[in-house]
Amino acid sequence: MPDSNSSSLLIVGSVGIDDVKTPLGEVNGVLGGAASYASTAASFFTPVQMVAVVGDDFPREHIDFFRSRNIDLAGLQQVPGPTFRWSGFYDFDVNQAHSLDTQLGVFQDFRPELPDHYRDADFVLLANIDPTLQLQVLDQIRNPRLVMCDTMNFWIESKRDELIKVLGRVNVAVINDGEARQLCGTFSLVKAAQQIREMGPEFVIIKKGEHGAVMFGPGLHFSAPSYPLEEVRDPTGAGDSFAGGFMGYVAHTQDPSDNNLRRAVIYGSVMASFDVEDFSQNRMKSLTPQEVAARYRAFKQIAHFEAMEELSLLERLSGE
Amino acid sequence: MPDSNSSSLLIVGSVGIDDVKTPLGEVNGVLGGAASYASTAASFFTPVQMVAVVGDDFPREHIDFFRSRNIDLAGLQQVPGPTFRWSGFYDFDVNQAHSLDTQLGVFQDFRPELPDHYRDADFVLLANIDPTLQLQVLDQIRNPRLVMCDTMNFWIESKRDELIKVLGRVNVAVINDGEARQLCGTFSLVKAAQQIREMGPEFVIIKKGEHGAVMFGPGLHFSAPSYPLEEVRDPTGAGDSFAGGFMGYVAHTQDPSDNNLRRAVIYGSVMASFDVEDFSQNRMKSLTPQEVAARYRAFKQIAHFEAMEELSLLERLSGE
Repeated sequence: MPDSNSSSLLIVGSVGIDDVKTPLGEVNGVLGGAASYASTAASFFTPVQMVAVVGDDFPREHIDFFRSRNIDLAGLQQVPGPTFRWSGFYDFDVNQAHSLDTQLGVFQDFRPELPDHYRDADFVLLANIDPTLQLQVLDQIRNPRLVMCDTMNFWIESKRDELIKVLGRVNVAVINDGEARQLCGTFSLVKAAQQIREMGPEFVIIKKGEHGAVMFGPGLHFSAPSYPLEEVRDPTGAGDSFAGGFMGYVAHTQDPSDNNLRRAVIYGSVMASFDVEDFSQNRMKSLTPQEVAARYRAFKQIAHFEAMEELSLLERLSGE
Repeated sequence: MPDSNSSSLLIVGSVGIDDVKTPLGEVNGVLGGAASYASTAASFFTPVQMVAVVGDDFPREHIDFFRSRNIDLAGLQQVPGPTFRWSGFYDFDVNQAHSLDTQLGVFQDFRPELPDHYRDADFVLLANIDPTLQLQVLDQIRNPRLVMCDTMNFWIESKRDELIKVLGRVNVAVINDGEARQLCGTFSLVKAAQQIREMGPEFVIIKKGEHGAVMFGPGLHFSAPSYPLEEVRDPTGAGDSFAGGFMGYVAHTQDPSDNNLRRAVIYGSVMASFDVEDFSQNRMKSLTPQEVAARYRAFKQIAHFEAMEELSLLERLSGE
């Protein structure tokens, strides 16, 4: 577990119960939700403070799991009514989730109230959730150093104005490729990233599923590979795990320099690559810090190539 | 131009005349064909020997262009009849070419006859063309050191057996992601690459268009980013330019080590990124060795991230 020198990371998002079917299997009634995945991934790097709501039907074992990851649950409300539920499936194209049913349950009337010790959070992850709730959380935080938001197609369609308000108040936006194209009305991810940066965030990270991720910033373009898994058992939560790993690492290091954000993208990719190896958060239950470190080194090998041999090639390229 | 210490690269493939329409414009009767694109890209690194056929309608200016690139045309037959013609278009998804018409013309009865000085080629690129012709070329080469083949969906469907024979005789196969999935009947590119490697080639490179390229080899997995162009004016020939840049660099350095093949993937990506900036081979006409070198350095920046800070993070990740 991370030590107490790490800075706390506040994460708001959905916590829910999922039914998921993929070409490699099917699970029902398992732990899901953006804040669940993001918090667990982040907890490998830094203490996490969770903001979310669950119903009175939420299984005790999931609460115990969060506690075992040292996640602060003072901001997790448990209220009468049904917990948020999502059911969906994936075909062989693991980049595309197909939703069958979404039941907001107790999220319908959720109004986040931050415990006082959450309000001094330096690092904030607004995981995928209604942008209105993201704004209500931001309003209660006194002086954050770095805020990142995630979103999804549903909010781009139904709450575009609120989403644009959120983007105006964050430092980093993370979004997947299809959603970036949808939000900006352009096929070019380079143009989409520029447009999103003009809405507010200094940095934009576009997640491309099996094709890795790209980060755009002031004078910065960074492309991270994906990890070559033979099989993706369940892609649910990959994007949330990415965001959690990214922000968990940033909060742990308290260093938002360009070079450190590049590393954070790799740690996010590492956590996403573990997430998809099993259904729900099963892989996270056995994951060790040593495995995280080994996979970071594997990413380094995957992306490695040497600098140009300046003398020999340039001479030959230029000389007649 | 490359000096005479570089080793010659033999390239066989189509040379033709294209009509191309993209969201950013339209050209008619321009220079096209896999061997054209590949030879021009390779000519920035090493002397090229071209094997192909054109009809008596083939414009003189294209011959002059090949000559200006120091491409050996002793193996380019000019015969009575119409030159190979392709017409097609691209929508905003530049990864997907839509063919409108293909006229084989003089390629219908082409039987490659290699000039004697071609038969000692050390490096061979079997660019996209009928695999029967690829095999006929291979049969005439005495003792090649490294052979790479490219192909396309049309041959996977219509000449699968011959294509598999080709794969059994090459060191490196290059193929795009959709074609790899089609050839192997699996969605997983990792599995597809394994299957193709079992057919013969030690190395398999999967081109992913705007998502870069990945190379698989013995104990080797390398992921190359793409260059972040705001607009792709004409994607035609990107894959051929990649193959030409890759093999041109390998022939130039005469070094098929893993580390050098990684560099070759980047040079291939560099040449592909220039190709798509303009229609046909227009960009290549003004391209300088200094621009090639500068873009290689840009790729290095795009892919760069630092190694894990072993002490601080591992200590914290592992320590309670």
